[in-house]
Amino acid sequence: REALADIIVKVSQLVSDFPEMVELDLNPVFATKKDAIAADVRIVVDFDYKPRPAPRSNAEIVTAMNRIMMPKAVAVIGASAEDGKIGNSVMKNLINGGYKGDIYPIHPKATEIMGRKAYKSVKDVEGVIDTAVFAIPAKFVAGALIECGEKKIPGAVLIPSGFAEANEPALQEEIVEIGKKYDVRLMGPNIYGFYYTPANLCATFCTAYDVKGSAALSSQSGGIGMAIIGFSRSAKMGVSAIVGLGNKSDIDEDDLLAFFEQDPNTNIIAQHCEDLKDGRAFAEAAKRVSKKKPVVVLKAGRTSAGAKAASSHTGALAGNDKIYEDVLKQSGVIRARSLRQLLEFARGIPVLPTPKGENVLIITGAGGSGVLLSDSVVDNGMSLMTMPPDLDAAFRKFIPPFGAAGNPVDITGGEPPITYVNTVKLGLEDERVHSLILGYWHTIVTPPMVFAKNMVEIKNAMKEKGIEKPMVASLAGDIEVEEAAEYLYLNGIPAYAYSTELPVEVLGAKYKWARGAGLL
Amino acid sequence: REALADIIVKVSQLVSDFPEMVELDLNPVFATKKDAIAADVRIVVDFDYKPRPAPRSNAEIVTAMNRIMMPKAVAVIGASAEDGKIGNSVMKNLINGGYKGDIYPIHPKATEIMGRKAYKSVKDVEGVIDTAVFAIPAKFVAGALIECGEKKIPGAVLIPSGFAEANEPALQEEIVEIGKKYDVRLMGPNIYGFYYTPANLCATFCTAYDVKGSAALSSQSGGIGMAIIGFSRSAKMGVSAIVGLGNKSDIDEDDLLAFFEQDPNTNIIAQHCEDLKDGRAFAEAAKRVSKKKPVVVLKAGRTSAGAKAASSHTGALAGNDKIYEDVLKQSGVIRARSLRQLLEFARGIPVLPTPKGENVLIITGAGGSGVLLSDSVVDNGMSLMTMPPDLDAAFRKFIPPFGAAGNPVDITGGEPPITYVNTVKLGLEDERVHSLILGYWHTIVTPPMVFAKNMVEIKNAMKEKGIEKPMVASLAGDIEVEEAAEYLYLNGIPAYAYSTELPVEVLGAKYKWARGAGLL
Repeated sequence: REALADIIVKVSQLVSDFPEMVELDLNPVFATKKDAIAADVRIVVDFDYKPRPAPRSNAEIVTAMNRIMMPKAVAVIGASAEDGKIGNSVMKNLINGGYKGDIYPIHPKATEIMGRKAYKSVKDVEGVIDTAVFAIPAKFVAGALIECGEKKIPGAVLIPSGFAEANEPALQEEIVEIGKKYDVRLMGPNIYGFYYTPANLCATFCTAYDVKGSAALSSQSGGIGMAIIGFSRSAKMGVSAIVGLGNKSDIDEDDLLAFFEQDPNTNIIAQHCEDLKDGRAFAEAAKRVSKKKPVVVLKAGRTSAGAKAASSHTGALAGNDKIYEDVLKQSGVIRARSLRQLLEFARGIPVLPTPKGENVLIITGAGGSGVLLSDSVVDNGMSLMTMPPDLDAAFRKFIPPFGAAGNPVDITGGEPPITYVNTVKLGLEDERVHSLILGYWHTIVTPPMVFAKNMVEIKNAMKEKGIEKPMVASLAGDIEVEEAAEYLYLNGIPAYAYSTELPVEVLGAKYKWARGAGLL
Repeated sequence: REALADIIVKVSQLVSDFPEMVELDLNPVFATKKDAIAADVRIVVDFDYKPRPAPRSNAEIVTAMNRIMMPKAVAVIGASAEDGKIGNSVMKNLINGGYKGDIYPIHPKATEIMGRKAYKSVKDVEGVIDTAVFAIPAKFVAGALIECGEKKIPGAVLIPSGFAEANEPALQEEIVEIGKKYDVRLMGPNIYGFYYTPANLCATFCTAYDVKGSAALSSQSGGIGMAIIGFSRSAKMGVSAIVGLGNKSDIDEDDLLAFFEQDPNTNIIAQHCEDLKDGRAFAEAAKRVSKKKPVVVLKAGRTSAGAKAASSHTGALAGNDKIYEDVLKQSGVIRARSLRQLLEFARGIPVLPTPKGENVLIITGAGGSGVLLSDSVVDNGMSLMTMPPDLDAAFRKFIPPFGAAGNPVDITGGEPPITYVNTVKLGLEDERVHSLILGYWHTIVTPPMVFAKNMVEIKNAMKEKGIEKPMVASLAGDIEVEEAAEYLYLNGIPAYAYSTELPVEVLGAKYKWARGAGLL
């Protein structure tokens, strides 16, 4: 046994010393009582081996990312005055989006584009440029990128496709080398660009988006990026940033984590990815960042069919999902199981205050919702508070004799608004209760908007007294409940119509984060 | 061993012969080589034991349910002309809902209510009455029910609460006995009533609903019933019936299954329940019915917390969920995991034609959606078709060289409508493909509504040629995709914006049903 251990140690040293060895096979190894000997050894050596570069320091990453995401000046390489061109959409988005920094259109011939002086090259611009957005065909990217390097621009946003994803790995390798040589960070290629709302910056050819908020989202895929924008607009979800990562030739999830960690405008980071180029770097960054801000990840390519599709989509090597599961869990990352869940978590988690304990209480007008909400509580890793007798008695004072105290508190369907108000107030005021799940039942006595306004009022009144607890709501009723749900959500109470599971999933995600960050 | 077997057989006979024995404990039993002897026997006998009545025959159930659900005349016991009264809401819903049969208001004093002649008792009405809707306080129900019995009305819709759910089990037992004695089937008590749209019948105090369709829904809880109505209206989901079951003193899920099985207006049955009063009867009915029409069940009270809440809500004994899981599975029932899923399944399953085989094909403009859709296919128990080389070659003719054939077919994002049309047409025409999942990516080249209209056109053109395959769609894009999703859905292609999982869940449910019904 000792002899075997000795072999393992020696082999480890060997491959550490010679990183060119990419495969090593000892087979068979004969172990006797006296010693162990490898009868056959096969070693595969990669003579093209390039040592992994020393990782960038966090400070370096943050310095560059700050300039790229909050640039004082942006150059648009391939700017165009012609409708329908990508370089035209980018110009329009920058100008109409309200970006206040300098915008330099770069064009081989034009002298002026959309009222801005145009330049032949970034090198002709006198002032400093922080971000260069590329809207030119793939084959011209390398040349323009060298000029960016010479101009000492820290970041290139590479919208063009036609690189690794289009079976042109050499073209991609070329720009990666240029980026390294000149220390230009590359976003993409093959992306929609990015949005950073605090700077009114839409560095993208997609539709503009300007609802400010605290969620920073990113996606590896352009289609998913468009879904993020559509959902955000539809749900009135405020975002700080939406970033396309595409082929991830350079900037990837952990660079974004480093930036958003210190970005005061971001409170939650939600990322869609098909692979992690550097799992270790991601895990390290996520572990650190998730202590401060919730990190939600939707890992696409979980299944073998999905992994196969990912590999032909972005060349992503999806890897074994069990490893991702472990790595994400250990990094304190909340794993979204579906695209919609990623989006709902990004929307709901920052709205909720952090709970101070594990005691969840359901207050419901619909007994049937109470049952389904209870199921959801268990499904989402929470548990219902055991109702203390004195609190139970206090609740009973407010509800009809045939209602049920305990947990859920079933106030029954026919009650007026004041019963909702009294019981919710009691739940908020009692220190033993840490979060509330509300089940509303649409009746003539308590119409949806009356309920919603009452709940927001009581929430705000309590806030003034220094009491803040996470509250979510499930609304059962006719279509008027949709308006009420929206009102509740926009006023700090994540609420869903016709669903007893979505509000609880959002609360559960907040709990998951709080536990991972050691706040509970 | 033989001696032990002998004991078991004899004990079985004993308890069959004496159903009053509710518990029997043989402990210890000494088994030797020669014989076996029970050293101690404990028998608990219930002297109150009432033999279980012989179950009704299916023909009896159907005859009664047909009269109740499609009545020629309805009596409203407790009809009122006064706004806000339940008996007023019921009258309004019957009249304004467009019910063409006779309506008899029953009221102790009034001579006319809402333009209809009023009667003191159902017994004063000359014509036959099929359904009596009760809108009077609990304590008056028994008396009026006897009159219904004497009038030979086959069904009583018991809206009032104040029975078992309000700690008045004796009151409920009383009406159950009356129902049995006079053979009046009882719906409820403690319900919102029911809707049967083919008869324009809204026998309820809730808001009217009249969008005709083929989904029959039921709920044990009023709150969930309101959520069904709200969702249906919002999603423009046509329904054949919505039924409240409440305390289920008599009519329960298997009675509804028997009725909907032979109801030509119903193609899918979706039920929310907190318990099954008679698991065996349900399993038998579901096993039979699910061979003809999909049966979807949301069982509330899955978890211990949920079961506890159910017990205090409807007195439901939720039982062990593993048993429900097995029973539902063996009965061919599709189990919904959430309220929203129950609703989405009810909406989507009848829209989809039944697949003729297991070969699922994804065609997508967004590679990222393709990956997530592939994951969802596996998650929902389906598998992606292995692409035959000749079909692969045929697809490649339509897509750009950097697109990816195989499965998913990735047509890439920049393609015009014709590429979607060509590839989808190919997928529909090839006999080896049995169902299609479409991934749309919002671009200027192929705007959402252009895509949607093209897809519906090609689907209809194929239908004329006799080709019908289930198709679902996932739409990634800005908010315009919501309108496109609705258009697609209303035209036979279940489609969802910002979600790669919901369309696949619906397709998966259809597959689950088709397999259970032996159609695949």
